[in-house]
Amino acid sequence: MAVYLDNNATTALDEKVLDVMLPYMGQVTGNPSSVHRFGRLQKDAIEQARESVAQLVGARAEQVIFTSGGTESNNLLLNGFSQRNKGCKIAVSAIEHMSLLEPALQLVPEAEIIAADENGCIRLEAVQQTVTEQASLISVMMANNETGVIQNLSPLIDFAVEQNCFFHTDASQVAGKVALDFVASGVHAMTISAHKLYGPIGVGALILDKRLPLSKIQFGGSQEKNLRAGTENVPAIVGFGKAASLAIDELQATSSHLRNLRDALEKGLKELSAISIFAEQAERLPNTVQFGIDGFDGETMLMQLDRKAIAVSSGSACTSGKTEPSHVLKAMRVPDVLANSAIRVSFGKNNTMSDVQALLLALRDIIEINQQSPVMMAATV
Amino acid sequence: MAVYLDNNATTALDEKVLDVMLPYMGQVTGNPSSVHRFGRLQKDAIEQARESVAQLVGARAEQVIFTSGGTESNNLLLNGFSQRNKGCKIAVSAIEHMSLLEPALQLVPEAEIIAADENGCIRLEAVQQTVTEQASLISVMMANNETGVIQNLSPLIDFAVEQNCFFHTDASQVAGKVALDFVASGVHAMTISAHKLYGPIGVGALILDKRLPLSKIQFGGSQEKNLRAGTENVPAIVGFGKAASLAIDELQATSSHLRNLRDALEKGLKELSAISIFAEQAERLPNTVQFGIDGFDGETMLMQLDRKAIAVSSGSACTSGKTEPSHVLKAMRVPDVLANSAIRVSFGKNNTMSDVQALLLALRDIIEINQQSPVMMAATV
Repeated sequence: MAVYLDNNATTALDEKVLDVMLPYMGQVTGNPSSVHRFGRLQKDAIEQARESVAQLVGARAEQVIFTSGGTESNNLLLNGFSQRNKGCKIAVSAIEHMSLLEPALQLVPEAEIIAADENGCIRLEAVQQTVTEQASLISVMMANNETGVIQNLSPLIDFAVEQNCFFHTDASQVAGKVALDFVASGVHAMTISAHKLYGPIGVGALILDKRLPLSKIQFGGSQEKNLRAGTENVPAIVGFGKAASLAIDELQATSSHLRNLRDALEKGLKELSAISIFAEQAERLPNTVQFGIDGFDGETMLMQLDRKAIAVSSGSACTSGKTEPSHVLKAMRVPDVLANSAIRVSFGKNNTMSDVQALLLALRDIIEINQQSPVMMAATV
Repeated sequence: MAVYLDNNATTALDEKVLDVMLPYMGQVTGNPSSVHRFGRLQKDAIEQARESVAQLVGARAEQVIFTSGGTESNNLLLNGFSQRNKGCKIAVSAIEHMSLLEPALQLVPEAEIIAADENGCIRLEAVQQTVTEQASLISVMMANNETGVIQNLSPLIDFAVEQNCFFHTDASQVAGKVALDFVASGVHAMTISAHKLYGPIGVGALILDKRLPLSKIQFGGSQEKNLRAGTENVPAIVGFGKAASLAIDELQATSSHLRNLRDALEKGLKELSAISIFAEQAERLPNTVQFGIDGFDGETMLMQLDRKAIAVSSGSACTSGKTEPSHVLKAMRVPDVLANSAIRVSFGKNNTMSDVQALLLALRDIIEINQQSPVMMAATV
């Protein structure tokens, strides 16, 4: 039985989520834009899901714009904002997901990059140093997908508000693991994704304070308050709603379960030689551990673990296959050789303590074999 | 039991399609960008689906770019082309779906509009008259979603090729109803959508000849040959593959079944008073009839039919709720009052001859009641 420890890349769809999606997959059809009874049924289902997603993030239903996923949400925010506010100045952190960083740099070439400290934290001083001119939009992710570092956003949001600047945060990795309160936090926009919280792939949301001026970037129909043309993905949206409701109900239990697994793994890792846990001193997501193993290549280790039927990642799934060290670890001034040895373990609610033990055992085996016979290890690569 | 006659808006998911999707909804998880076994399994499933979709349209697998749907495919084509070829000249037909027409006009404000004739056909002379300067891209849909008119694209494609100009066609309404041959047709890009052919919502494709230069418009990961960032919607893509395979197998039987229903409806309509079938003289999709009823308002008729549990549309679902007459009928010089009376019936493979009879009976009832007592009809509106 293979062990899946890559839940920051994607989570397995919850059976209870699938159950509510199935009636919208063939039994009931209709385009939610249609005005007849088939269409109205679909429309109602969307609005019910919107309420649940709003509740998960502490927003009002009308602030939820459904998209095809987190990548589209980040692109809608960046592209929609820069289209609407020509010549705007924006600042984004150095540790953002590529779906935020790449559009920022492509669409606003003069975008400023806010540095991270060695713990992977974005400090107010860094924001103040970077955002010297009047910026229109600052984006700092709530928790990093690789290291799991959770940002202390309050002072950054206060700074943005003082500067009359909008603030966006990518909370894709946070929803379902830590409580969210969009309205109380003061952020103007937030990205979330269903398949990171046991919901379906193919749907995400941009939570949007209407004061933030945004153009649509996908044209055609006037769906989603005229901000996202295209037939709504009803079964996925319905599933997102259910995943959100479950996440609210299970938040305490899931977080505590994940934390137990994470703590057990970190304890075990410290008994192995030459392991460095990245951002160990920072507040982190309860499910994520990223570490380097001195003298090992991360991609090779990943494949060695895969042969032992254990799935981990070396960093973000979206940048897999790239040979460069992670831009997140680079931003934290981790030396390249250590960054290249990175392994990310991200637990999900379905993992158990025996998965932790299986991973520790496998790591110990691989490290010991290599220490006994480095050539043999290299030969199997 | 309600009768669904709005299959150009969306079709019901085929049970056989759902069956192949289910294993990818929870039982097997993994991000296709991940290099471990879970990820590879997802990747393999995508590539298998790509083969099936390619086969449906007569393309090579590497020409299939999966998107979140037809709207995104049209936007990727228009936006990606205009980004990559700054200052390019484009020409689009007046009867395109809004997901083509709106981005064309938004992104290339000087885009030229090719006129339709009174039968809803785009004639070579109209293209020649419009495209006087060197154009870089011409887009004419293969079959219209409202009238069902199928274009004779060959002379238009030949003209484009002579002019050293790329040619795109939106074939969303054609796939599964009429055989397609992307390579042989000489078009450079083609839009298709899964949920129009009994596949899942949330997935479409842009079939792309690599000679057509395109920029990505959604940034982040390098999925889909670096043309569409974002985690692939694996269950939907797998479902699209199966829907494509079924469409190939069932093409003859489905087309002939649809044509029988359509012909029976048209025969019945002609026995009613004051009915005009739009584009009656043109070659049309086997499943689509759009007609006007003298003295009636289309939206009102639609709601009257809805009360009798029959679902039709007045035009495109994506423009439902708009009070203006259809831009397609306007382009055909249909008088506004007749255009405003439009009803579109679009059959699907699940419809039966008794659905046709139910619709004809309901229409006769409504028309007769109104003729006997026009005031009563108005009062119920």
